Amino acid sequence: MSTQPSKELETFPNPRPERDFVLHMRVPEFTCLCPKTGQPDFATIYLDYVPDERCVELKSLKLYMWSFRDQGAFHEAITNEMLDDLVRATAPRYMKVTAEFYVRGGIYTTVVAEHRKPGWQPEPKVELA
Amino acid sequence: MSTQPSKELETFPNPRPERDFVLHMRVPEFTCLCPKTGQPDFATIYLDYVPDERCVELKSLKLYMWSFRDQGAFHEAITNEMLDDLVRATAPRYMKVTAEFYVRGGIYTTVVAEHRKPGWQPEPKVELA
Amino acid sequence: MSTQPSKELETFPNPRPERDFVLHMRVPEFTCLCPKTGQPDFATIYLDYVPDERCVELKSLKLYMWSFRDQGAFHEAITNEMLDDLVRATAPRYMKVTAEFYVRGGIYTTVVAEHRKPGWQPEPKVELA
Amino acid sequence: MSTQPSKELETFPNPRPERDFVLHMRVPEFTCLCPKTGQPDFATIYLDYVPDERCVELKSLKLYMWSFRDQGAFHEAITNEMLDDLVRATAPRYMKVTAEFYVRGGIYTTVVAEHRKPGWQPEPKVELA
Amino acid sequence: MSTQPSKELETFPNPRPERDFVLHMRVPEFTCLCPKTGQPDFATIYLDYVPDERCVELKSLKLYMWSFRDQGAFHEAITNEMLDDLVRATAPRYMKVTAEFYVRGGIYTTVVAEHRKPGWQPEPKVELA
Amino acid sequence: MSTQPSKELETFPNPRPERDFVLHMRVPEFTCLCPKTGQPDFATIYLDYVPDERCVELKSLKLYMWSFRDQGAFHEAITNEMLDDLVRATAPRYMKVTAEFYVRGGIYTTVVAEHRKPGWQPEPKVELA
Amino acid sequence: MSTQPSKELETFPNPRPERDFVLHMRVPEFTCLCPKTGQPDFATIYLDYVPDERCVELKSLKLYMWSFRDQGAFHEAITNEMLDDLVRATAPRYMKVTAEFYVRGGIYTTVVAEHRKPGWQPEPKVELA
Amino acid sequence: MSTQPSKELETFPNPRPERDFVLHMRVPEFTCLCPKTGQPDFATIYLDYVPDERCVELKSLKLYMWSFRDQGAFHEAITNEMLDDLVRATAPRYMKVTAEFYVRGGIYTTVVAEHRKPGWQPEPKVELA
Amino acid sequence: MSTQPSKELETFPNPRPERDFVLHMRVPEFTCLCPKTGQPDFATIYLDYVPDERCVELKSLKLYMWSFRDQGAFHEAITNEMLDDLVRATAPRYMKVTAEFYVRGGIYTTVVAEHRKPGWQPEPKVELA
Amino acid sequence: MSTQPSKELETFPNPRPERDFVLHMRVPEFTCLCPKTGQPDFATIYLDYVPDERCVELKSLKLYMWSFRDQGAFHEAITNEMLDDLVRATAPRYMKVTAEFYVRGGIYTTVVAEHRKPGWQPEPKVELA
Ligand SMILES: [Ca+2]
Ligand SMILES: [Ca+2]
Ligand SMILES: [Ca+2]
Ligand SMILES: [Ca+2]
Ligand SMILES: [Ca+2]
Ligand SMILES: [Ca+2]
Ligand SMILES: [Ca+2]
Ligand SMILES: [Ca+2]
Ligand SMILES: [Ca+2]
Ligand SMILES: [Ca+2]
Ligand SMILES: [Ca+2]
Ligand SMILES: [Ca+2]
Ligand SMILES: [Ca+2]
Ligand SMILES: [Ca+2]
Ligand SMILES: [Ca+2]
Ligand SMILES: [Ca+2]
Repeated sequence: MSTQPSKELETFPNPRPERDFVLHMRVPEFTCLCPKTGQPDFATIYLDYVPDERCVELKSLKLYMWSFRDQGAFHEAITNEMLDDLVRATAPRYMKVTAEFYVRGGIYTTVVAEHRKPGWQPEPKVELA
Repeated sequence: MSTQPSKELETFPNPRPERDFVLHMRVPEFTCLCPKTGQPDFATIYLDYVPDERCVELKSLKLYMWSFRDQGAFHEAITNEMLDDLVRATAPRYMKVTAEFYVRGGIYTTVVAEHRKPGWQPEPKVELA
Repeated sequence: MSTQPSKELETFPNPRPERDFVLHMRVPEFTCLCPKTGQPDFATIYLDYVPDERCVELKSLKLYMWSFRDQGAFHEAITNEMLDDLVRATAPRYMKVTAEFYVRGGIYTTVVAEHRKPGWQPEPKVELA
Repeated sequence: MSTQPSKELETFPNPRPERDFVLHMRVPEFTCLCPKTGQPDFATIYLDYVPDERCVELKSLKLYMWSFRDQGAFHEAITNEMLDDLVRATAPRYMKVTAEFYVRGGIYTTVVAEHRKPGWQPEPKVELA
Repeated sequence: MSTQPSKELETFPNPRPERDFVLHMRVPEFTCLCPKTGQPDFATIYLDYVPDERCVELKSLKLYMWSFRDQGAFHEAITNEMLDDLVRATAPRYMKVTAEFYVRGGIYTTVVAEHRKPGWQPEPKVELA
Repeated sequence: MSTQPSKELETFPNPRPERDFVLHMRVPEFTCLCPKTGQPDFATIYLDYVPDERCVELKSLKLYMWSFRDQGAFHEAITNEMLDDLVRATAPRYMKVTAEFYVRGGIYTTVVAEHRKPGWQPEPKVELA
Repeated sequence: MSTQPSKELETFPNPRPERDFVLHMRVPEFTCLCPKTGQPDFATIYLDYVPDERCVELKSLKLYMWSFRDQGAFHEAITNEMLDDLVRATAPRYMKVTAEFYVRGGIYTTVVAEHRKPGWQPEPKVELA
Repeated sequence: MSTQPSKELETFPNPRPERDFVLHMRVPEFTCLCPKTGQPDFATIYLDYVPDERCVELKSLKLYMWSFRDQGAFHEAITNEMLDDLVRATAPRYMKVTAEFYVRGGIYTTVVAEHRKPGWQPEPKVELA
Repeated sequence: MSTQPSKELETFPNPRPERDFVLHMRVPEFTCLCPKTGQPDFATIYLDYVPDERCVELKSLKLYMWSFRDQGAFHEAITNEMLDDLVRATAPRYMKVTAEFYVRGGIYTTVVAEHRKPGWQPEPKVELA
Repeated sequence: MSTQPSKELETFPNPRPERDFVLHMRVPEFTCLCPKTGQPDFATIYLDYVPDERCVELKSLKLYMWSFRDQGAFHEAITNEMLDDLVRATAPRYMKVTAEFYVRGGIYTTVVAEHRKPGWQPEPKVELA
């Protein structure tokens, strides 16, 4: 695996596919370009998912995030694109991408998109006291 | 698009209308006038919505917020007016406006109003562990 | 309207009665007397409600809060009394009073009481991702 | 009422028994002894309840908390014992005791136990926007 | 019980098995090795459970956590392994293990896995105002 | 000592007058009246001092703070008056009164006044790494 | 005194001119216009001073802050202008104006300017342990 | 060394007496009795010192803190007593005891006392940018 | 002025050169490249200065920060280079650059460098109570 | 450079030796063993220094921190040993090591040791308003 920015997401087999478990990943170092002005945008990306057969490999996720550094992208489009890429690579039971952008024009914008595998149902939540 | 305060809200086509995704916007720089005393009021405005065919354009939202600067408006009325304007411009699946006003007479007031497109149902929420 | 403490709560017509919207009010400056010892008690009062035909006028709410300054009142009783007074004045769809008292005998006490208009149902909550 | 530690919990009549209202009490000054080593343990105790006919008197609750000062008690057992004592004294509609213990062996332990009066149902929760 | 790292988890009888109560445990001092690079990883471990017949003994839990100090383990695998070990030792009604790992490659990862005893149902949650 | 508001400050002999030591006291429950409008003002009072022969008695300080409840007083004047009263009662080596008032007209005001015993010098401060 | 924005600052006699005491004032509701773009700027203003013969009147300070609402002003210039106006009105022993501006172009700017009365010396600071 | 509360403070030789270095110790679990009412008091104790020939042994410090559990002691006196005991045991170059007591009568009290070895001078502080 | 990244720093005349005043600027959106690995580095930059004849223009500072986006630079070198560039452009009385880098290898690094104009002395600091 | 734990500290030439600048480094992932019990200890290490001819290389510092993983060491001794090693490797103008240990026996301990190059003087600190 090179250490170049890359759109290819590596995966590895889920070590416990018989159980629905959850992965939360926070990526505070994300930058892309504004497609209108060409100026840098900054964001924190959150990835939350329930893996099925494959998990995202950590270093490859980092290189994937890096791959947006010189890419122009609207807030709404880039969040959906990330979700599409990650779903294509891992075919998860559930996945959510949250992109928390830095202030522009005095306004803070966060975009959230999620994917559910057809037929998959979360187990009813146990809420402890 | 001018850089004058404006009640006209620009929109652009939703890049992913086949998916219910969420936009959270926070506007910490908002001021209007008290209709009783004419004195300035200050607030932070929150906009949360699920777009249908159109998204709110960021710069135009900023000019829209600016348009209240010289307008007298009661807390309860202005929050509902904003929601009406934004719903008219974007016809969203779901939208919520929250206006968190600065203290007056020793009392902090927040007003929250929401709109739901008839027939639209949110997908059952997945609550991860 | 005088600027004397007053048990009379002024109201004004709800500017948008066709929509269920929410008002949150926080009153950090509240003091009354302990009915057992006569010593001052301090609290922060929270008022959350969905108006029906009438909204509470802000200045009158402040004078109402002031009216407890020389009144002896147990924690449990005063919270219910406030709710009764505010419900009588505004006949809201929903109302909740929370009284967060300052420490006494090393113990922090908060009392919460709510009222629901018979037959009124909250719209099913939309929980965004 | 003496100012000695005491297992006896005083109560007073609920001033508004026709309404389900809530009491939250936080007791940050609690200490008992570890039954294995005899060394002091420290905790913060939280009491949350919906009274039925009787409320817990504040000063008596303080003396009750004091009564554990020289008592050896395991984390799991003491939390359940407190709940049993408080339920016996007040026969509440609902009650929860939370004991947040200070670190031991590098591990922080919190124990939560609750009681529900048979047949009592909480009103469906109103979640405001 | 020795003070050596140990995979053996001691338990003791649940003092109140007729009641569903909850234990929350936080272990901020956890370290293992990255199986790819051999370098140290650090995490905070959270254990939340409803005991059935047995509770985890605190000191033994500490020695168990210590036992990972020289063990290579992937984030996803180690969290599931811990849950398996703890379930085997205590056969709880419900158990959840959360492992919050320290940043690697600029990414923070948290893994959450839970176990439910077949047939066990949590009591419907009482949400107080 | 009565439990009535009182301008009389009780004192007791400094237990260690041969050493310059420091007392910090924070009084978050303070209220007086605005002399212009008669409306309540709220503040947190801080007292910091190096005692000489006498220390302020805690309960008497509480009753002294209570004595301002029905007194009209400007922010600047009341802070200096408190300092004068406390200096008269204890003749300290050093004393500072800080009054942090609640917002009025959108402005937060804090007033700080201090007294130094003639000829007294603080020991040069040891600032640890 | 009118309730119109006004550049005139009212003062009143210092109630304790024989003592150097300190006033801290925080004004979180301040807005002016950017002289280059005409767009609104927002800031929090802090005023710290040691009065000599005159103190700033609170309501007049609020109207003075309001007077900048329609005024174009660079960050550096407006802070110095405020200090000049306040010094002219009160001739203090010491005064400092801090203007903490809201983010522009991704950069947060704070400007601080101070004035010292010629010949005035602060008392050597007493730093308590 | 026993595990009984004990007024005897164990020490060990300073491993680096040729260098002035600093020890900060925080003891959040401290309780004693109020000498007037016999009721429990709680505090957090801070110990900061520059050792000379001897350092305080950690476990012995814990047992020393425990020794106050059944002792009546005024805030001002107990802080000075601790400092005296710790100075006697370790004869440090510099030592400071801070006792932050829990609220009583609505007032939070902190007492700070320090000792300096005659002739000892702290090195002039290096304040980094 | 273009909206391209640029090493040229625009300045404007100090509006109040006869007074030593202070500018604090915080730039949370900064990224450059690691010269060893070519991978992105992220930092928050702080600029604090006392202007002499010239002030840094805000938009030009933003473009200057952008100019490092594709530049390889060691933490220690880049901080000193920024200070050199900013001093050359503005010749300030005093300037400090602080670069707070994001974690690498589990270690957080901050670099601070400052410049003082020969012969310039800060006024003795007034520390208010 | 290997990726094994190592006591050898790599350095590189200071890129700007003609200027006194400051490096702050925070290492939250540190663990060693208690020399008395053999059990793990955890700490956060802070390194602050003014380099002279050499700077500490980041990766080598990480491997150095790793080298304590299997080493028994008292709090006071290990902090001084680190300072000695780092001073030997870099011969800095000024260096400070702070070791903030995790709670043991209910007590939090922090040790701070510093080194000054003979004859070196810090520039008088500029404290901005
Ligand atoms: Ca809990
Ligand atoms: Ca709200
Ligand atoms: Ca989580
Ligand atoms: Ca509550
Ligand atoms: Ca969100
Ligand atoms: Ca505690
Ligand atoms: Ca208050
Ligand atoms: Ca320290
Ligand atoms: Ca604001
Ligand atoms: Ca202190
Ligand atoms: Ca405590
Ligand atoms: Ca710093
Ligand atoms: Ca960032
Ligand atoms: Ca202050
Ligand atoms: Ca840690
Ligand atoms: Ca500042």
